[in-house]
Amino acid sequence: MAELITIDDPDDPRLHDYTGLTDVELRRRREPAEGLFIAEGEKVIRRARDAGYEMRSMLLSAKWVDVMRDVIEESTAPVYAVTPALAEQVTGYHVHRGALASLERKQLPPAEELLRGARRVAVLESLVDHTNIGAIFRSAAALGMDAVLLSPDCADPLYRRSVKVSMGAVFSVPYARLDSWPRDLETVREAGFRLLALTPDEKATPLDTVAPHRLDRVALMLGAEGDGLSARALRAADEWVRIPMAHGVDSLNVGAAAAVSFYAVATGRPQD
Amino acid sequence: MAELITIDDPDDPRLHDYTGLTDVELRRRREPAEGLFIAEGEKVIRRARDAGYEMRSMLLSAKWVDVMRDVIEESTAPVYAVTPALAEQVTGYHVHRGALASLERKQLPPAEELLRGARRVAVLESLVDHTNIGAIFRSAAALGMDAVLLSPDCADPLYRRSVKVSMGAVFSVPYARLDSWPRDLETVREAGFRLLALTPDEKATPLDTVAPHRLDRVALMLGAEGDGLSARALRAADEWVRIPMAHGVDSLNVGAAAAVSFYAVATGRPQD
Repeated sequence: MAELITIDDPDDPRLHDYTGLTDVELRRRREPAEGLFIAEGEKVIRRARDAGYEMRSMLLSAKWVDVMRDVIEESTAPVYAVTPALAEQVTGYHVHRGALASLERKQLPPAEELLRGARRVAVLESLVDHTNIGAIFRSAAALGMDAVLLSPDCADPLYRRSVKVSMGAVFSVPYARLDSWPRDLETVREAGFRLLALTPDEKATPLDTVAPHRLDRVALMLGAEGDGLSARALRAADEWVRIPMAHGVDSLNVGAAAAVSFYAVATGRPQD
Repeated sequence: MAELITIDDPDDPRLHDYTGLTDVELRRRREPAEGLFIAEGEKVIRRARDAGYEMRSMLLSAKWVDVMRDVIEESTAPVYAVTPALAEQVTGYHVHRGALASLERKQLPPAEELLRGARRVAVLESLVDHTNIGAIFRSAAALGMDAVLLSPDCADPLYRRSVKVSMGAVFSVPYARLDSWPRDLETVREAGFRLLALTPDEKATPLDTVAPHRLDRVALMLGAEGDGLSARALRAADEWVRIPMAHGVDSLNVGAAAAVSFYAVATGRPQD
């Protein structure tokens, strides 16, 4: 069983994993460098544990020590019991959900490994918004995408906000980062995938007529909110596809576009 | 041409429309009672104007007086030129987009009127989150929904956050509020619509097999994030439909579910 340690000094070095959580720039550098990530709220912490992430510690206010009793009992990581006020001093914000955990990152698998067993993958280019990353993982999990591949400059799926918005789907949908962009798309093609680039371009094939679910293996490429896929990424694709839009409307939000296209490549897929 | 008035007193009563914008509770009461709403940023202000909303005033920092020159010239409403610091004092936040407008609400049409010319409508129950409302209107516009009907307790599509997230789609997609819920769903049915209730329930028909686009008139009912449609609303529907989900996943975010279902009821629709 984990050791339960009451802490009342906000400068206690054991709380280091949880300091300055509202400083996005700082945390974005620190967390990958230190090999950790933060999960927030009972449900998300449980999902991280169930997905096999190793606990470094938990930071709980009194009420949550009871709720998380079973997790504490089966863990060996220290549990820091603090007042809500101290939690706020350390993290920089009022921790509504009263429970934080610091967990060890795992080594990401190489893309080749993920592609081996997959039939439907999403490939994201330059998505820097943590909310959008989280939303896309949540939809990917619900709509049965097998994996997500990220361009080198995509935001971190394990950043606290991404984890939260995804409702923990970042733990269940396997993902990998491509090292060289867009060159590594060749790896995806060599693994037998047809690369479909989502774009509002009029020349693209409407998604409902391309029948992507009839294809054996599909990689669906999505670009960032606003600009969409880069010209280089579009050139590297096998085919351009578009979601049919009403006249005079710019585009869908990238989260909505992802959900629609995941649905389109899944629909009609033979039952597993 | 509008009168350009430089204001340097944050308590100037002419700035009343813009006070305390960060106080959601206050603004939620005040704005409908005073018959106004706030649009933020050049693009959204232009869209409100293009949609025929009457300008009460604009609040601009110097830079934006130039950018909005043409709007100012064709308007008769006063334009208040202020420093960014004064804008922040009045509104309560740093106005990133530098341009605010206060506009007159219009009387909402009765549901019957909207339904007359429509073929695809969304019916929203108890959606109280302004971000979700905005996101759903944006998808409704892009995916060609003809109108949106709101249950009495839905959040205000003209609240600043909804307007912003919708990118102005709340101005272009006609909407109405039902007075009596769920009784007024009968009005929708009498107008010739088939009421499809979106639910994760296993007993529901998968959305891709129900072929809603073959129906002449479809009303797609969506409930709130978390709880989904109420039992009363589900009973009032003609048919239950579901988005096929991967095993073990709770649900899609309501914005994603809306986008997917709008796409499903639009796809295959004969070209207009």
